[in-house]
Amino acid sequence: MVQQHITSAYDRDLEAIQAHIMKMGGLVEAAIMSSARSLETRDVELAKEVRAGDKAIDALEELINAETARLIALRAPTAIDLRLILSVMKVATNLERIGDYAKNIAKRTTVLVESPPVGDSAAALRRMAREVELMLKDALDSYIQRDAELATDVISRDQDVDQMYNALFRQFLTFMAEDPRSITACMHLHFIAKNIERMGDHVTAIAEQVVYLVTGSRPDDARPKGDVTSTTA
Amino acid sequence: MVQQHITSAYDRDLEAIQAHIMKMGGLVEAAIMSSARSLETRDVELAKEVRAGDKAIDALEELINAETARLIALRAPTAIDLRLILSVMKVATNLERIGDYAKNIAKRTTVLVESPPVGDSAAALRRMAREVELMLKDALDSYIQRDAELATDVISRDQDVDQMYNALFRQFLTFMAEDPRSITACMHLHFIAKNIERMGDHVTAIAEQVVYLVTGSRPDDARPKGDVTSTTA
Repeated sequence: MVQQHITSAYDRDLEAIQAHIMKMGGLVEAAIMSSARSLETRDVELAKEVRAGDKAIDALEELINAETARLIALRAPTAIDLRLILSVMKVATNLERIGDYAKNIAKRTTVLVESPPVGDSAAALRRMAREVELMLKDALDSYIQRDAELATDVISRDQDVDQMYNALFRQFLTFMAEDPRSITACMHLHFIAKNIERMGDHVTAIAEQVVYLVTGSRPDDARPKGDVTSTTA
Repeated sequence: MVQQHITSAYDRDLEAIQAHIMKMGGLVEAAIMSSARSLETRDVELAKEVRAGDKAIDALEELINAETARLIALRAPTAIDLRLILSVMKVATNLERIGDYAKNIAKRTTVLVESPPVGDSAAALRRMAREVELMLKDALDSYIQRDAELATDVISRDQDVDQMYNALFRQFLTFMAEDPRSITACMHLHFIAKNIERMGDHVTAIAEQVVYLVTGSRPDDARPKGDVTSTTA
């Protein structure tokens, strides 16, 4: 009886923490799309909202860290429970990083609106951000449902994001060569593309946590590296 | 007596994990400098060594994660001990990321040697990397010695790295505008500068962990703040 009582108190605590994770995930999904939309529609007010909104995401990560630490100290979880609790912290860390990238995109947007658009790159970046947002949605669903198959699907989709990034990288090089006045804007736009590509990496890390949680082994070794621009001559 | 026995077994385990952290720190310090040196001396073999060496850094992080999880499960640490153990995992994560950035610099070096050097940027990048390496050395010293003052000093030095980055960013814009043939090389060099700047951020995160461990409050809170009501007893 006592054991059962302890277990269900533990379950309740864990569920509360996972609810925070889902709330954090929702805020981060919104931040991804709002940052990309603010860039495309040159909406400085929306960009400001994204920057201000990052505080709430950071605060949730702090809360999750504190709650998980309290849970470990209070309940002395078994090895398997501990793996779950530590995964919660890792997911929160990844979400916080994605939020930071969205904030950084919003920051660059407030600079970019001062110069003319570069081709249709803002629309391409928004499509790329949309892809990452959908990956994140599925990664969080796979986390809650402990669905390793869906998580594996998310991991494989990161290659599409990498390919979108590679194509944009080449486009920006061309734009800069053709019109040196676009160089500063292209540097910012390129960083935004890289930020979205990194968001994809963090979503993938969340999906990898799910695979690890469900199957007990890491999917790392199987993952192909999609961003090839660091070796583009 | 039993309590004392348990405590010292716990201490021994923790010391073993911290020894892994120091070894990991040593490898990462070496990777920072070797990657920057390979770029400056256009030494492709050294760059290859850095890329291959990252596996050992990743393996140490895995080991530290496994050992800390085992320690928590086995010893059911108190809240304060737990704070220390979780900080070990966070330091390992930061070190692993710094190692990744060094690997990425080495990767770009193997491409950059195929085009002519861009001004004296490689020397400037090496100086920047040297600054970060010294910060990391001090951050790890402050961690082992629980020296919050040294850690605070490390945090303040990150501003110098940021300034070095800003100066390089402007230089690369100028180089690209003056000679469009340098655009691709400048994009890679700019990424290297950004990688080093991010390394500095991760070193700062390690130093912030030290301040938190020693003082119990996050260094953010220590920065001057107009509204003190939240800490008024």
